[in-house]
Amino acid sequence: MPREITAFSNPLIKRVRSLREKRHRREEGLFLAEGLRILAEAEEAGMLPELLFFAADSAAHPIVRRLTATVEARGGEAIETSRDILHKLSGKDNPQVVLGVYREFDTSLARIDRAASTIWLVGQAIRDPGNLGTMLRTGDAVGAGGLILIDDTVDPFSVEAVRASMGAMFTQRIAQARWEEFLPWLRTGPGQLVGLSLDSSEHYRAPRYGAPTFLLVGNEARGLPADYAAACDLRVKIPMLGKADSLNAAVSCAVMAYEVLAQRRG
Amino acid sequence: MPREITAFSNPLIKRVRSLREKRHRREEGLFLAEGLRILAEAEEAGMLPELLFFAADSAAHPIVRRLTATVEARGGEAIETSRDILHKLSGKDNPQVVLGVYREFDTSLARIDRAASTIWLVGQAIRDPGNLGTMLRTGDAVGAGGLILIDDTVDPFSVEAVRASMGAMFTQRIAQARWEEFLPWLRTGPGQLVGLSLDSSEHYRAPRYGAPTFLLVGNEARGLPADYAAACDLRVKIPMLGKADSLNAAVSCAVMAYEVLAQRRG
Repeated sequence: MPREITAFSNPLIKRVRSLREKRHRREEGLFLAEGLRILAEAEEAGMLPELLFFAADSAAHPIVRRLTATVEARGGEAIETSRDILHKLSGKDNPQVVLGVYREFDTSLARIDRAASTIWLVGQAIRDPGNLGTMLRTGDAVGAGGLILIDDTVDPFSVEAVRASMGAMFTQRIAQARWEEFLPWLRTGPGQLVGLSLDSSEHYRAPRYGAPTFLLVGNEARGLPADYAAACDLRVKIPMLGKADSLNAAVSCAVMAYEVLAQRRG
Repeated sequence: MPREITAFSNPLIKRVRSLREKRHRREEGLFLAEGLRILAEAEEAGMLPELLFFAADSAAHPIVRRLTATVEARGGEAIETSRDILHKLSGKDNPQVVLGVYREFDTSLARIDRAASTIWLVGQAIRDPGNLGTMLRTGDAVGAGGLILIDDTVDPFSVEAVRASMGAMFTQRIAQARWEEFLPWLRTGPGQLVGLSLDSSEHYRAPRYGAPTFLLVGNEARGLPADYAAACDLRVKIPMLGKADSLNAAVSCAVMAYEVLAQRRG
């Protein structure tokens, strides 16, 4: 049976709320995801929260009932609470009716099985959680294996990135690595590293991409460092008829990923 | 010579700050844009602010000096102020060193010259300012004529949309219209209306697109209404291998726009 928490001062509420900060996520190894849609997609991908909070007035909702039963059957805890407390936990004015506390995944490169897909997305120093989430959604759409985050990026477990991924963070593999670690790993197996670079003269639709393709996109403001671009097997550019840098990083990544997908299926 | 404002209580500061709200923008016919990069791009596109605020400690910056001189030469006013006041005006923790107050453009359909480009982006009920800004950037990148906003969308003159457009709102034409007004206008001249629809079985790379192409993308959560899709000359879909709706609206728009561009240039 779900227990009920209605007091803001409850220590569990404070603890869960603290997971909005990276420091606490790292300490606890836990992160937050909100909303029926995202939690249902996580469940479909085999991921259940350790703690499930739901609004008392939505206890009868079929997805809430199913999630509650499944979480409890798997040894997790379901907690009935108020909208006010959900608001406090999520920091949103209109909080979702469910919020899950999930165990963080292992994001080491070692867990990437490159044979699992012919497309992998790689983002270097991505700083915007919206872009990170959008790249995960794009990965899901093109059937990528996952997203490899290079160097210092926004935390993929941040509330904003999880929200922007719309559930794709549960379907895409996520890895984090320094460049010095990524490049040697990449060279231990098959894989063509393709860098998006404004300095390249090669049109992105010209080459035939080898499989698996690792699509490397650089930081939103600075693009790829020159030495990173130089280490790629191929450097291509997406033509921009207006200002040189007008495309958003996540958008560039998607345009490229759909070209690779079209070649795979054509 | 620039005048100096250092008092928070100055009525002009209050008036400019109020432009962060849509109601005040409509009353005054003015909007805000921030940052050296965006203001310089606006200038390049021939748009100067009526009021230019700059941080006293950046008065010697070459772009600030040039903007100040040009604004004053054209009858506008340049105002030297403090970082604290710029923070108050922009609402950002790290305010940009310049902020411009611009006259809103006329966004009536009548001002669209469809012959000016062979690609036009059309967004229906777009709600996210980040998506609106990203669509403007994509339009700039593919050489689109502009973005036509259908039905109730987020305000293109909002601080968030202007920021997300990274200056592209000054290079792309923007129009706003109800569907009942847009469709008859479209039919008064040449133009193929292509709707992105998950219900279509036509792959987006299959057709040869006619010029000018009007690329219609629907609301982030609901997509295109069925009757809007039915009124299109062509309905196409972008394949999604994961969840049916995983692509972000602005990303879908960009993938389509780059296909049209590739056909124009191929």
